[in-house]
Amino acid sequence: MIGVAMTDDNLHVLLRARPAPAVTAGLFEPVAAPIPTVGEGQFLIRVVWLSLEPAMRGWIAEAANYSKPVPLGTPMTGFTVGEVVESRHPDYPVGTVVQGRQGWRRYAVSDGTDIDRIVDPAVAPISTAVSVLGMNGATAYVGLVDVCQPRAGETVVVTTAAGAVGSMVGQIAKRLGCRVVGVAGGPDKVRACRDEFGYDAAIDYKATQDLGAALDGACPDGVDCFFDNVGAEQFDRVLERINVGARIAICGTIGMPSFPLPTGPRPNRQLLIKRARMQGFIILDHYDRYAAIIDRLTQWHRAEPFRWREDVTDGLENAGAALERLLAGRNAGKALVRVGPDP
Amino acid sequence: MIGVAMTDDNLHVLLRARPAPAVTAGLFEPVAAPIPTVGEGQFLIRVVWLSLEPAMRGWIAEAANYSKPVPLGTPMTGFTVGEVVESRHPDYPVGTVVQGRQGWRRYAVSDGTDIDRIVDPAVAPISTAVSVLGMNGATAYVGLVDVCQPRAGETVVVTTAAGAVGSMVGQIAKRLGCRVVGVAGGPDKVRACRDEFGYDAAIDYKATQDLGAALDGACPDGVDCFFDNVGAEQFDRVLERINVGARIAICGTIGMPSFPLPTGPRPNRQLLIKRARMQGFIILDHYDRYAAIIDRLTQWHRAEPFRWREDVTDGLENAGAALERLLAGRNAGKALVRVGPDP
Repeated sequence: MIGVAMTDDNLHVLLRARPAPAVTAGLFEPVAAPIPTVGEGQFLIRVVWLSLEPAMRGWIAEAANYSKPVPLGTPMTGFTVGEVVESRHPDYPVGTVVQGRQGWRRYAVSDGTDIDRIVDPAVAPISTAVSVLGMNGATAYVGLVDVCQPRAGETVVVTTAAGAVGSMVGQIAKRLGCRVVGVAGGPDKVRACRDEFGYDAAIDYKATQDLGAALDGACPDGVDCFFDNVGAEQFDRVLERINVGARIAICGTIGMPSFPLPTGPRPNRQLLIKRARMQGFIILDHYDRYAAIIDRLTQWHRAEPFRWREDVTDGLENAGAALERLLAGRNAGKALVRVGPDP
Repeated sequence: MIGVAMTDDNLHVLLRARPAPAVTAGLFEPVAAPIPTVGEGQFLIRVVWLSLEPAMRGWIAEAANYSKPVPLGTPMTGFTVGEVVESRHPDYPVGTVVQGRQGWRRYAVSDGTDIDRIVDPAVAPISTAVSVLGMNGATAYVGLVDVCQPRAGETVVVTTAAGAVGSMVGQIAKRLGCRVVGVAGGPDKVRACRDEFGYDAAIDYKATQDLGAALDGACPDGVDCFFDNVGAEQFDRVLERINVGARIAICGTIGMPSFPLPTGPRPNRQLLIKRARMQGFIILDHYDRYAAIIDRLTQWHRAEPFRWREDVTDGLENAGAALERLLAGRNAGKALVRVGPDP
């Protein structure tokens, strides 16, 4: 544990500009700030891990997305794992590890309302509280289990299959008895899909001349469930191959530019002919079930550990550059910033 | 009742060619055929009404749609209302009115397996057994009640709002306490929406310079449920206005050419941001519930009669021309062919 007294440098990283349209490190500015004092009913968190999300592109965009954009001149928002280093709150004694929404800052005061859960370091490395056993795992769970409702023996296709969410979709789908096919970019990610995450087949969309033919080969019985993070051409090729009664979860649109809205083949007739369902979801709507979902994931993990990859950037001051890398698809695994050492 | 002995001319209308790509009367050929003999367990139906459906474009197209295409050289398939004129089946005595799938022919023998239901002529004119209290009403019910799941006070938008299905969606949605907005083409259809079918607002998409602005005016609280029969630009403009948690039923794509597949704005991000659901459905999948749905519609009708419009073409030999008219949008109300006089 690093005591509060060891530093008075409470680095913040502020959002200074909107994407134009690319998200670059230059949109963010690290600034020094004082460590806040802890009032009655509050506690001080030393942030250890900062989670980076593809959705952050939407969080900081001018156009209203599913939440208000992060205001300019304020610390970037984000999910964190941290350690309580000072406390005047009975539920969060010093030494407690918490997963919360402290944002891009080294220290944060909390009254508990921006805490998602207390983390048991004995279950898994605490960084997993913002990945496999955190928001990414819960996102995979809601999109796959609730939206797609897969049945054993069905074929599930996942895009960004080696990513933080996709790799959990694949692993959960395998636990549910499905045939699981991943689409990812590059030989390293495809290898991870096959060798680490247990996909039955994985397709490198960057190396494949004909994604449709590759999907035909990997999905001889068609596609029953489709968990999509991409949109664009990958979406089109999978949609062409859905079975009657297919369910499509729209989790992300990383392959679609923010502006202008791209065009593509209209899906209406295929959805009609196949009596298929296409549904967007956002994990934050399911916050009331978050604890139960994490419990379920933890049970699965204890029975047969999940696999994950982390792409760690050291230093909060480098968070903007790390986000730029993530949104350019150059990360390999869950994008994390190590703000300080594990407790 | 016209006795069998009064005619031996059992006209059939055969499908002779595939759409290229338009559906024209010339694809069909009326031919004379003998009246079939009635075996044990069978009965002879004199067809009175023939129902025409926009979906028939898909039924006869080369490309496999949701069912096998109607084979060339065979009578066109279709829903009918007829009268039993000869019977060797205890459940269907002479004089029974039946709604079935006898296709484009004047007389047909049945063993009951191609009968959907026995029609009570006291409830409503028997032609309604293929419209308001038939497949069109059931289609409206499944798409609105099951797929869209509207709640009282929500806003429902319906395209082809004055059509056989659309007008029933509007009337059912009013009975469920919704604000109901119709989109239709031409002043006569818009007037019917407002004055006959009870829509709260109706928009003439052909006369409106800015459909989006017209929808904004008609839907001040946004769109919660969207029952779409059109696709194309009408779909796009409504999609832009959906609320969080919206439900979209895809019932038809009459505004989209059959081939090639048209492009349009990708809906993925809007479905994601609005956590919305878009689902295709086909009434034939819900055949097991057909009787129960017709019972529900009949209860509603007895409490407060549904309104409908019929666009009647006389003579089975004119069915092809009537279908051409329907698919060109020149009908006004449910497209029916009167094959013979009511019993």
